Amino acid sequence: MAVGWQGKTRLLPVAGVRLGVAAAGIRKTGKPDLMVMELTDGSTCAAVFTRNLFCAAPVIVAREHLVQDNPRLLVVNAGNANAGTGAPGLEAARASCQAAAALIGCDPQQVLPFSTGVIGELLPVDRIRTGLPLAISGLSDSGWDAAAQAIMTTDTVAKAVSRQVRLADGTVTITGIAKGSGMIRPDMATMLAYVASDATVATDCLQDCLRRAVEASFNRITVDGDTSTNDACVLVATGKGPRLRDGSDDHQTFAAAVTDVCRELAQAIVRDGEGATKFVTVAVEGGRHSDECLQVAYTIAHSPLVKTALFASDPNWGRILAAVGRAGIADLDIDAVRIYLGDVCIVRDGGRAPDYTEAAGQRVMGQDEITIRVELARGAAAEQVWTTDLSYEYVKINAEYRT
Amino acid sequence: MAVGWQGKTRLLPVAGVRLGVAAAGIRKTGKPDLMVMELTDGSTCAAVFTRNLFCAAPVIVAREHLVQDNPRLLVVNAGNANAGTGAPGLEAARASCQAAAALIGCDPQQVLPFSTGVIGELLPVDRIRTGLPLAISGLSDSGWDAAAQAIMTTDTVAKAVSRQVRLADGTVTITGIAKGSGMIRPDMATMLAYVASDATVATDCLQDCLRRAVEASFNRITVDGDTSTNDACVLVATGKGPRLRDGSDDHQTFAAAVTDVCRELAQAIVRDGEGATKFVTVAVEGGRHSDECLQVAYTIAHSPLVKTALFASDPNWGRILAAVGRAGIADLDIDAVRIYLGDVCIVRDGGRAPDYTEAAGQRVMGQDEITIRVELARGAAAEQVWTTDLSYEYVKINAEYRT
Repeated sequence: MAVGWQGKTRLLPVAGVRLGVAAAGIRKTGKPDLMVMELTDGSTCAAVFTRNLFCAAPVIVAREHLVQDNPRLLVVNAGNANAGTGAPGLEAARASCQAAAALIGCDPQQVLPFSTGVIGELLPVDRIRTGLPLAISGLSDSGWDAAAQAIMTTDTVAKAVSRQVRLADGTVTITGIAKGSGMIRPDMATMLAYVASDATVATDCLQDCLRRAVEASFNRITVDGDTSTNDACVLVATGKGPRLRDGSDDHQTFAAAVTDVCRELAQAIVRDGEGATKFVTVAVEGGRHSDECLQVAYTIAHSPLVKTALFASDPNWGRILAAVGRAGIADLDIDAVRIYLGDVCIVRDGGRAPDYTEAAGQRVMGQDEITIRVELARGAAAEQVWTTDLSYEYVKINAEYRT
Repeated sequence: MAVGWQGKTRLLPVAGVRLGVAAAGIRKTGKPDLMVMELTDGSTCAAVFTRNLFCAAPVIVAREHLVQDNPRLLVVNAGNANAGTGAPGLEAARASCQAAAALIGCDPQQVLPFSTGVIGELLPVDRIRTGLPLAISGLSDSGWDAAAQAIMTTDTVAKAVSRQVRLADGTVTITGIAKGSGMIRPDMATMLAYVASDATVATDCLQDCLRRAVEASFNRITVDGDTSTNDACVLVATGKGPRLRDGSDDHQTFAAAVTDVCRELAQAIVRDGEGATKFVTVAVEGGRHSDECLQVAYTIAHSPLVKTALFASDPNWGRILAAVGRAGIADLDIDAVRIYLGDVCIVRDGGRAPDYTEAAGQRVMGQDEITIRVELARGAAAEQVWTTDLSYEYVKINAEYRT
């Protein structure tokens, strides 16, 4: 189960957003697997998508539609990614939008499609057509929790977060949901995340807030280093609440609150990472620039040997040292590097710290939440990423995924 | 057990090389864990070492000694890597060389030390001092097989290969041994490999042969993407046999034979990769240059999702497609890319090949030895790398490594 994440938050409705779900039979389980999110007229919308070149059909269609019109409806299915499906996949995504548009009376370009699940199987459009009326008839502003459930695939818990933040002209609400557990190393966005606020925000400003939030949240997590074909993150402002006032701190305040929501969702994805038994923060400090900090952090976070040691609660710090050494940082002064497990210094002066004891390392490794900190001692840049361990369960989940 | 590798080769002695082993008590098992390899006076020697910045103490000392004199003795221990051990580790490596030199009557700089095993524990020099007389008293030109056994750590089978090749002035013998199973993504050399020939070869020529051989063998394999701190590969020419004749094809012939031996040893390491149930060739063709072919090949070979699908014999080709898409190749024309599982085309025209069937994919995935082939269709470069799947056993071995 998810490490240190109960998944029980009181979700606040967002004026101007209604959600509905249906069991359309796309997943074999019979649970709800179709989710629709209706946005009130006048909403603004920002989005970021995967940078995987083999991006899924719905990603291509959603990108097209976003530049044509303001979205009124998001249609999300779980169980089938509609990726690697070529021209028929594009047709299926467009047909879903047409069906939904006809039901709520908008243009097909005002519908954004999203899919998550198995890659390479054609989306069963007929099932989506059948499920849509039910999902739409159930639209409700209190549908957030059911929506978070409906978009899950290998997730074991739903991920949802609400915040309220005070702007110059009043309080705004931000509520977000996300799904993701495997194939997680987002590049621009995670698997799927939908964040909405009742604030009144111009599109450019909204896109800026989303860019900053994603960079500090979904773009800082990894479970297995595999970037999905379907990653997407959408931020909506319905305009039913206060407007971000020009010349005030509102832009910063709102962006910080959105970042906060996204970071909590992103960390929830890691906490629920496939087979995860640990939640691990890898912090790299003292780099010349962010890129080299991230390079070291991801080398550690992706090392199967570090990840299996974390699973075993084994303070096998030599594997962390070896990962730092192979991270590809030119002219790194090894003797100046320091590595910490929690508050315990494990590496100093090119080798094991003289005062390190196995007992001290064991005390940190025995915890559910662990911080690995590396001081590069060559600059002022710092970055952190969040990741999991590598367990039997990870192998089991991914070996049996399609069976 | 190792995939498609019996480990039963008839090993040919190499005139001018004698080997001996001893159980020095460095490993807990009581099996031989100390190996010495004596080279006749006049031997030439080439070597390549890890590029991990945190390289082990014996790597530092061996590099120093190689530029000072011609080696007469290699001293190799398993069970302790003497890495991450700082100044005391360097002292321990030097003390081992001194002890060995005193026993056979040469200078300490004529001894090269090598270590493999757990990182970060100080090398027990006293045990090596105690074991050395026994190993040296047993020196024999038929000691290759015992030597291959003695350097194993998590290896399940010994890795050793012999070849004979005809040069202008007569036949030369090449025999090599290697160890390695985990922390395998060599960068310049694998864990440990020792290859010797009775040929008479100048040092420069020998280094050229080794460089070419390593590039096409140990630098093309990966088990878990983790480059070791201790990788080393040594090529010896004892000068007891024919001299490579100037102006003949001897240089090419000899280099090709050394490459052949190294490739078989490198593949044996992959076949015995920790927890391996599959031997996988990832071939990438039609690239603009070698680097981008390797980039795609390693992205596939390191993907935990591809590796768990291989373990499950599941033709989940979407994961291969997703790995190609995130490999970071700029302006790759996705519609021109083709991906094959064995001889079965799985991806064409941006999605699943129209004639692909799950049964055809399953037939290939059910085999022990699998080739994944990617055609990038944008140039003439081609590369291949060899790797394994990711199994429960990999997690078990690495979670329990120090217990």
